[in-house]
Amino acid sequence: MAKTNPGRFFEDYAIGQVIDHAVPRTVGQGERALYHALYPARHALYSSDEFARGCGLPQSPLDDLAAFHVVFGKTVPDVSLNAVANLGYAEGRWLKPVYPGDTLRASSEVIGLKQNSNGKTGVVYVRTRGMNQAGETVMEYVRWVMVRKNDVDAPAPETVVPELKRVLSVDDLVIPDGLDFSNYDFTLAGEPHRWGDYEVGEQIDHVDGVTIEEAEHMMATRLWQNTAKVHFDATFRPDGQRLIYGGHVISMARALSFNGLANAQMIVGLNGGAHANPCFSGLTVKAWSEVLDKAETSVPGVGAVRLRLVATRGGAPFRLKGDDGKYLPEVMLDLDYWALMPV
Amino acid sequence: MAKTNPGRFFEDYAIGQVIDHAVPRTVGQGERALYHALYPARHALYSSDEFARGCGLPQSPLDDLAAFHVVFGKTVPDVSLNAVANLGYAEGRWLKPVYPGDTLRASSEVIGLKQNSNGKTGVVYVRTRGMNQAGETVMEYVRWVMVRKNDVDAPAPETVVPELKRVLSVDDLVIPDGLDFSNYDFTLAGEPHRWGDYEVGEQIDHVDGVTIEEAEHMMATRLWQNTAKVHFDATFRPDGQRLIYGGHVISMARALSFNGLANAQMIVGLNGGAHANPCFSGLTVKAWSEVLDKAETSVPGVGAVRLRLVATRGGAPFRLKGDDGKYLPEVMLDLDYWALMPV
Amino acid sequence: MAKTNPGRFFEDYAIGQVIDHAVPRTVGQGERALYHALYPARHALYSSDEFARGCGLPQSPLDDLAAFHVVFGKTVPDVSLNAVANLGYAEGRWLKPVYPGDTLRASSEVIGLKQNSNGKTGVVYVRTRGMNQAGETVMEYVRWVMVRKNDVDAPAPETVVPELKRVLSVDDLVIPDGLDFSNYDFTLAGEPHRWGDYEVGEQIDHVDGVTIEEAEHMMATRLWQNTAKVHFDATFRPDGQRLIYGGHVISMARALSFNGLANAQMIVGLNGGAHANPCFSGLTVKAWSEVLDKAETSVPGVGAVRLRLVATRGGAPFRLKGDDGKYLPEVMLDLDYWALMPV
Repeated sequence: MAKTNPGRFFEDYAIGQVIDHAVPRTVGQGERALYHALYPARHALYSSDEFARGCGLPQSPLDDLAAFHVVFGKTVPDVSLNAVANLGYAEGRWLKPVYPGDTLRASSEVIGLKQNSNGKTGVVYVRTRGMNQAGETVMEYVRWVMVRKNDVDAPAPETVVPELKRVLSVDDLVIPDGLDFSNYDFTLAGEPHRWGDYEVGEQIDHVDGVTIEEAEHMMATRLWQNTAKVHFDATFRPDGQRLIYGGHVISMARALSFNGLANAQMIVGLNGGAHANPCFSGLTVKAWSEVLDKAETSVPGVGAVRLRLVATRGGAPFRLKGDDGKYLPEVMLDLDYWALMPV
Repeated sequence: MAKTNPGRFFEDYAIGQVIDHAVPRTVGQGERALYHALYPARHALYSSDEFARGCGLPQSPLDDLAAFHVVFGKTVPDVSLNAVANLGYAEGRWLKPVYPGDTLRASSEVIGLKQNSNGKTGVVYVRTRGMNQAGETVMEYVRWVMVRKNDVDAPAPETVVPELKRVLSVDDLVIPDGLDFSNYDFTLAGEPHRWGDYEVGEQIDHVDGVTIEEAEHMMATRLWQNTAKVHFDATFRPDGQRLIYGGHVISMARALSFNGLANAQMIVGLNGGAHANPCFSGLTVKAWSEVLDKAETSVPGVGAVRLRLVATRGGAPFRLKGDDGKYLPEVMLDLDYWALMPV
Repeated sequence: MAKTNPGRFFEDYAIGQVIDHAVPRTVGQGERALYHALYPARHALYSSDEFARGCGLPQSPLDDLAAFHVVFGKTVPDVSLNAVANLGYAEGRWLKPVYPGDTLRASSEVIGLKQNSNGKTGVVYVRTRGMNQAGETVMEYVRWVMVRKNDVDAPAPETVVPELKRVLSVDDLVIPDGLDFSNYDFTLAGEPHRWGDYEVGEQIDHVDGVTIEEAEHMMATRLWQNTAKVHFDATFRPDGQRLIYGGHVISMARALSFNGLANAQMIVGLNGGAHANPCFSGLTVKAWSEVLDKAETSVPGVGAVRLRLVATRGGAPFRLKGDDGKYLPEVMLDLDYWALMPV
């Protein structure tokens, strides 16, 4: 019996199948410190226990994206080991902050299957849930990936394409228990701009850039126990380059967005995202944002802002797609998310 | 309204102005571990809770320089974003050890201003204080930087150059509550040399060298939430090099100084310091020290030693300045500090 | 009096001499997180406090190899600063798991000495013990190194070559108190293969590869406070390369071995090991294992498996030595250890 994991191929998935992912992970102060070493993260709620308490939380949670990365990393051996491409995200929601000492595990349900017309690959849709040690779902999201068939003669499954919300409504968003911005300290947070100061359509150039190193993206990706070969093994791709985990770019861009969005404290919804072009070491990541929408939430004082976060490898800000409707070559990430701000 | 931080320019400062810096930070076991991963730090009091307890402290504090870096990092967006040069330090004092779980914030008072004769820049002197969650000052220091004017036609402020102590006297130094070297374990500390074994004028070559990597200095500098572009963005300088945060060189040299100064356990005073020449990745840092002074403290068994710590990028030790009085090109750091040793 | 540590030379050792190593170290959540960032470590017992509790332990211990590295690192200034070569390991045993908050120190006894016929070097055998803050031995091992003489005219000591077990028997292994695999969760552990599924002689290619970066091996080696110049100073070797700490290769290979040996949870014995060829940055580490032996232990449900773990820098798996009996050039590590698995 072969002992190593060959990953699942397209024909190994079935609608309704639930995959409990392996290797639960306890996160703690070490993961928090590493997140701050790997990304220029400065959102005060994740930097200071005191600030978090001032916002009604028991202490500073793990960065929302770190929670996402840990959950995502668990799914890789079961979902994307034989993936050709990571096609999209939808209906991502953060349901409960993750605190030091929490243990996360993950489970995915196959909710869509569609064989491609070439007969060699297919698209798999999974809804993934991350749970803590109490069994509470801390986050969930839908992801779809293109996966190779191992046996091209395997019959095509019935096509099921799930209906997914293009955008989460504000009612879909879960505000963490106790969150209270009534005593929010804008000086300590770093910027005076509140929810009311942002306008739909407003664009923000986050100015700063960070040049990417191999050691850093590999440490980050390993920290999330993401094992995809292509991120670690320079002999894997013919060009000798290690493809950088898309989540590294997300975290880098989000951290850079502090400069202009310091009060967009908590990420609560992920509407969608595209890894438009690959990222490699040596490139310099810059970021810009656009306010796509705003909404009041059920909690007084807590506003929701829907943001487009774009990571580029240089070039002028605010350029996204060419006349052909395709992403410009310098665009690496186009992310659509909801964050919470003091009103 | 522009949302991003343009930084302050010379004309934005006024004598007596107090700037509360943003983004408080809770430090913990993760920061301690990262400090040991980034620097060859081996001073036993910072490595072992047991050793620290044997010296009368409740547990191992965060490295004194890590506390400095966190406080310094907080000031960057307000003090040195438009700085042309970091000119000097004075009157630095560590007033209280920082322990895992402490939350640090920082505040600076403008204590000096002097426009340069070119009318385009000026020197700003600030006294910065780092506070913990109880509001206690854990450290303070004066720093002066050369800052660009945004509006060269802005009127020059009245020149105020603060009188600063060239050297702190031993009476200025604060010995941590409870510090007691009467049961000091020289074997576990790593060297037998006590305060009485060092002579003023003695020079020590710390022998070991460390070659600097981009990933490491960026992780360190980010860990302190220091956001100066020049450390991270390879496209920022025309030569494509990232300038390494001067504090990275300080910590590297201090850690190297263990070899010969293993018992210079705690840093309590910073008399001054010059970043004589820049540091870039690929260089190999070496260090040497000179005993500048010695003094007994108010606590029996605890001696103070004033040390010059020099970091070089190679070359023979003990060479500092040329016949022209300028630092030799291989000298990167000339630091003057007080440390505590068992008598 | 020279203040820096010149290290010990061959003539400085005597049979029966006990060396208490310096710089005790408290390990915690930070070290655990860094271990996961530096190595693709996924064994569930070290990743999840919940999983560890399910196996009868109070929480997730520090990785067994991290404990080894900390203990090993302590010995470097006293044992291998003037070593020409690290010749071998034997009788390594993990006696007690190390938990966050534990403080480790180390002590070595000289148990063998043999001057080489060239009169310039000799072999020193030491038995090293790592102790926690309660004075309990957490691990021990024998290591022998070739050390230079400082004074080639110093008389040769009487030759003493200790009798060392070529392989530990299962009765030599210590099963951690309370370890209980009766509720072992194979799904969360990541593989269904239990002790009974492995056969003596079976070989496993661990498939994945990791390309090595300077920043990572230096961070790892510093984290263990291993100060050997050759790992850090690019100017030390004539070829400008930093020799990678052999323990970095051990940890990398062990982590890679998850893929096929996910249930070989705890390392309890080290029978021997050879650093067959050096490792440098830029190489891609791959690993394969061979089952050398199996044994039942005194604890029902806990089986012991003796494994050969081989790290290579590429090439086909399962090739170890050439016709000349020498290690092939692509082999970097040949390690022989005992691990515990659910029966």
